[in-house]
Amino acid sequence: MSNTPLNTQYADAIQQRIDQKTKPVGALGQLEDIAFQLAMIQSQGKAQAVEAITLSQPSLLIFAGDHGIADEGVSIAPSAVTQQMVLNFLMGGAAINSFCRVNDVALQVIDCGILYPVESTSSELVSQRLGERTANFAQQPAMTQAQVTEGIALGKACVQRVIDDGSNLVMFGEMGIGNTSSAAALLAAVSGEPAAACVGLGTGISSEQLALKTALVEKGVARCGSHDPLNALAEVGGFEIVQMVGAFLGAAEKQTPVLVDGFIVTVAALLATRINLGCRDYLIFAHQSHESGHRLALSLLDASPLLDLSLRLGEGTGAVLAVPLVRAAAEFYNNMASFAEAGVTV
Amino acid sequence: MSNTPLNTQYADAIQQRIDQKTKPVGALGQLEDIAFQLAMIQSQGKAQAVEAITLSQPSLLIFAGDHGIADEGVSIAPSAVTQQMVLNFLMGGAAINSFCRVNDVALQVIDCGILYPVESTSSELVSQRLGERTANFAQQPAMTQAQVTEGIALGKACVQRVIDDGSNLVMFGEMGIGNTSSAAALLAAVSGEPAAACVGLGTGISSEQLALKTALVEKGVARCGSHDPLNALAEVGGFEIVQMVGAFLGAAEKQTPVLVDGFIVTVAALLATRINLGCRDYLIFAHQSHESGHRLALSLLDASPLLDLSLRLGEGTGAVLAVPLVRAAAEFYNNMASFAEAGVTV
Repeated sequence: MSNTPLNTQYADAIQQRIDQKTKPVGALGQLEDIAFQLAMIQSQGKAQAVEAITLSQPSLLIFAGDHGIADEGVSIAPSAVTQQMVLNFLMGGAAINSFCRVNDVALQVIDCGILYPVESTSSELVSQRLGERTANFAQQPAMTQAQVTEGIALGKACVQRVIDDGSNLVMFGEMGIGNTSSAAALLAAVSGEPAAACVGLGTGISSEQLALKTALVEKGVARCGSHDPLNALAEVGGFEIVQMVGAFLGAAEKQTPVLVDGFIVTVAALLATRINLGCRDYLIFAHQSHESGHRLALSLLDASPLLDLSLRLGEGTGAVLAVPLVRAAAEFYNNMASFAEAGVTV
Repeated sequence: MSNTPLNTQYADAIQQRIDQKTKPVGALGQLEDIAFQLAMIQSQGKAQAVEAITLSQPSLLIFAGDHGIADEGVSIAPSAVTQQMVLNFLMGGAAINSFCRVNDVALQVIDCGILYPVESTSSELVSQRLGERTANFAQQPAMTQAQVTEGIALGKACVQRVIDDGSNLVMFGEMGIGNTSSAAALLAAVSGEPAAACVGLGTGISSEQLALKTALVEKGVARCGSHDPLNALAEVGGFEIVQMVGAFLGAAEKQTPVLVDGFIVTVAALLATRINLGCRDYLIFAHQSHESGHRLALSLLDASPLLDLSLRLGEGTGAVLAVPLVRAAAEFYNNMASFAEAGVTV
């Protein structure tokens, strides 16, 4: 595969370029890390990329899917809200639309299997449904292994189309009533951590619902029997999550950085790295969500996100809000003067 | 004065507008706080501002000044670097220029008294020098009370010109070799906290320099004899810091929000609130610096900054990097759909 860990051929040259800018070494903190990572990614076999990072049309894909587990009452809203929010995305009325507008980020919505499909001819809607919704994972496997395989292939193809169309920075968002339950179960299954360490309040459930959610997650995880990510996806996954796992794998194959959103997207990233460790090099972590399992997922990925704004919405909001920081990192890397250029005494 | 605490006449209407957006209550975290604060500021006596926040030409003023204390060897660079960096700002080569470019922020540089003035006809340079540089505050008062009074008036007038020219969001940055020493001394003087709690590594001094810096700050603070901010400015202040204090007071008089940068700017904000508490309502805290006294200054202002990116550069970099978050907050407040508008089940 092409997404083996990055070649370090130009690492010294890139670090030197950053260190010679008119600032104390390291004074731009995490922006220096972003610039280094982007330059490393873009300079694979291409020396000219050491001199300049390019950013073209950052794009967000929102993966939407519904969950059988929602029947158990573990969410603040019914599954119908998934469809309503997909329509809201297509009409430009959601938080994520506001954030995409101000940050010049393109948006597509992927129907991976929501309960009530939308009637729309919008060019922003892609239908690649794996079913009507997943089965209730507290009772039976959420999906078949064939659906896992197909979902990964669909997610991969989808992001690769966006990259082929000219985007070299991608983000994934999600919408799906019940999907924090699925993400928590996936995290517990692949990490071996107890369900209680992985389950959180979602968009705001009660403590009774939290206890129920934890018990249901435990039931699903008990069936997994191993840390295998593909098996876990079949047992307790979601249609939107499996497609996001494919999208992470697809971006890495195309050597394209991904700005990683909150809890659910981070769990998909974790699963992708368990399938192909080389993915990790392409991940820039955007946002620390207040969902409690997120910190665990981030620590398993050795990740320190850029933003911590107490968001708990999903949709890709955290990732899109971090895009200006990536642009700032590229701009200082490309155009900030060196000590020699500016005549500043070292 | 016009900058008494904000009238709360429209507070409920503003909060209701935020809570009816298509998201769980509070799910946009600190962006909701920004939107609320901006709408409160802009709706003083104007009901129509409850419906929409306007943002026009965010502007950064970089206040530059030199410090006699730099003779003591408490910085990583000589005073000549202040001039070199001012030239770098005017030529567009510094980090702050990169960040202003990508975030569409206008920039002016204010020479408040740097050791070697620059020869420039740039329209981005404003000369309002209080002297050549401050006196060495470890030995004698940094400036006279007359200079304090004049500096506050100049800073006030300067920001008010920018506001009158059409900016309704302002930021202040600073450049001045030695100015973390002055800021630490001011913080110790007005807070009563020990010098050691206020002094940090600046842009990267050694532990020997840190011990020296702490001892020098103690000497200056010992002369202050009270928590009075104007007296502290004369004893241990800086020409750029006193003008920033004036700028904070001037922005508040014009009911204009200020996005507050790191340690030195936050100390200036603290002093401004000690002169007029009403200023506090106009402050949005952008950035948690890694300079150790910053946390103390923020806690005295009851502030939780938006960003924590391990920056330690100054120049206003942290403030300018937060501008896209303010734009995102205004955009969701203005244009995100309500539950009723989007037909989403509450």
